Amino acid sequence: MGTRTNRRVALARIPQGEPQPADFALVEDPSSEIGAGEVLLRTIWLSMDPYQRNWMAGARNYGTAARPGATVIGRAVSEVVSSNDRRFAPGDIVCGETGWQTHAVAPADALESVDATLAPISTALGVLGAPGLTAWVGMADLGQPRSGETVVVSAAAGAVGSVAGQLARIFGARVVGVAGDPRKCRHVVEDLGFHACVSHRDSDVGAALARECPGRVDLHFDNTGGPVTDAVYGLLARDARIVLCGLVAEYGAADARGHDLRPLLAAQATLKAFSVRRNLHRMTEWRRRGSEWIREGALVHREDVVRGIERAPEAFLRMLSGQSIGKALVQVAEDPSPR
Amino acid sequence: MGTRTNRRVALARIPQGEPQPADFALVEDPSSEIGAGEVLLRTIWLSMDPYQRNWMAGARNYGTAARPGATVIGRAVSEVVSSNDRRFAPGDIVCGETGWQTHAVAPADALESVDATLAPISTALGVLGAPGLTAWVGMADLGQPRSGETVVVSAAAGAVGSVAGQLARIFGARVVGVAGDPRKCRHVVEDLGFHACVSHRDSDVGAALARECPGRVDLHFDNTGGPVTDAVYGLLARDARIVLCGLVAEYGAADARGHDLRPLLAAQATLKAFSVRRNLHRMTEWRRRGSEWIREGALVHREDVVRGIERAPEAFLRMLSGQSIGKALVQVAEDPSPR
Repeated sequence: MGTRTNRRVALARIPQGEPQPADFALVEDPSSEIGAGEVLLRTIWLSMDPYQRNWMAGARNYGTAARPGATVIGRAVSEVVSSNDRRFAPGDIVCGETGWQTHAVAPADALESVDATLAPISTALGVLGAPGLTAWVGMADLGQPRSGETVVVSAAAGAVGSVAGQLARIFGARVVGVAGDPRKCRHVVEDLGFHACVSHRDSDVGAALARECPGRVDLHFDNTGGPVTDAVYGLLARDARIVLCGLVAEYGAADARGHDLRPLLAAQATLKAFSVRRNLHRMTEWRRRGSEWIREGALVHREDVVRGIERAPEAFLRMLSGQSIGKALVQVAEDPSPR
Repeated sequence: MGTRTNRRVALARIPQGEPQPADFALVEDPSSEIGAGEVLLRTIWLSMDPYQRNWMAGARNYGTAARPGATVIGRAVSEVVSSNDRRFAPGDIVCGETGWQTHAVAPADALESVDATLAPISTALGVLGAPGLTAWVGMADLGQPRSGETVVVSAAAGAVGSVAGQLARIFGARVVGVAGDPRKCRHVVEDLGFHACVSHRDSDVGAALARECPGRVDLHFDNTGGPVTDAVYGLLARDARIVLCGLVAEYGAADARGHDLRPLLAAQATLKAFSVRRNLHRMTEWRRRGSEWIREGALVHREDVVRGIERAPEAFLRMLSGQSIGKALVQVAEDPSPR
């Protein structure tokens, strides 16, 4: 095993502004030996997420620091190749924060089993993984949309937004998405069942949102920040709630333009920022609930797959620039489970 | 009574940027007759408050619209001259939103009695009035400082901030104020018992705050907005709470610079914006609690008095520019009650 080659994508440099392909480098190392309590993994599915951009910008709370040479962080679904821990055996499917590499050595404590009989294993990175859990915690626990309320969800075609909006619809709210191009907006309305979807590339996104939210906005599930956030703030209903899940439009910006808080004061709004990382213990419950909604057809999901570890930067830039629809994934090796 | 003269301060024009004396005009009218259920009042004390600036800037939620010729809105303590309502008799002292004028005709329903035996009647506009109630609702209900936490209060020498910070101190927190000149900072520490006070005119208010908040900021009671808000956001502890009470540094600004929300996301902070206007039914409870703390010496207050209705604009601009210490008042007529 010590002679097996690990191919990994490292930061070549810290991205300045919009990340570029040249910010990444493919590196080949011999893969490491496993120690006591460790497991050697073969990566199958790699998750592309906006928080990786925030990590590259030096944000705290993500474990290892972003520096040239560091393997890009990220969650993956993998197959166990060999194990020094009695909880895992070769052939088991697991999920963990193992980074952009074909073979990872990880402590068994940091891995969770993936039940391949419940759903395709790639969903452990999307609808039945951290993005789905993020949407569920943010919407069900924090946002708590009520029947008849109007909810706006930004990045509505993304891995988190697509689930968040569908949950708000399941809970009885009128859901208005914000997404990029018309193709994504159509997907959000026709496939995901949002009541409407506005393009943030619209020349006047505020006016477009105002048309779709005639009774103003009771709840804003914010994944992006940027000008969309200001447009929604201008439409807040009294006692509006804002669930601040992400600011992907602002990660890495040297000086974000900032947001006028006067509309929040006028609306007597409440804003709650949160991270899914403190709610990972609820994953089992979410998988049970989410998979029921999937079986009932109430919750649909879509994946945007690029193949090959060497194309991870390309997939990441696609996701960041809003070209992917649904959960952005890189397939690194063949999936042994039924799809 | 129809021949009595009413002197009132009206808007001469809508202030553009910093309000100027020429934005106001003193107008003399015959005072109106009172109708059924109405009361004629002689204004004694007039309250100068930051929200009046927000009204002048066209903010909603303040009843009458700001336009040239409109009497400036404001709360006042007054003596009843004549009454067409059995709840009030000549000589009674009342409080209400009766504006910048020497004589007001008001519906009895919109007035509340002031108990002149409880405290000097001017306190019904300050520590035992809406500003004190604002501080109490914001701190006790929303902020809920716990023993050992670090609390930052902006506009710490003002009518709301001075009470908010003292309440946090009473509740066992370490309280750091932000105020203007060194004279105010001394007052905040020496008279009001804050643990420290930082001047927002300091060249690096963020560094000064960081020195006084070594364990970071658990609770921010924000009265001002502006650069102080950004400095505090940079120091938020995990799970920090922000009580957004006012944005006086931004009222009327054509384009407020806006606030970077990324520190709130990193801290997983909660922000609650509120208005005292929906909590006025709790005034009686606050008067009882607040007057007890005043009697015990735990809560002190100070007034900054200018005399004469014609000097109301001057007093208002003094308050807005941060020159007043404590509750800014205009004494319009002699106070008949014991001081």
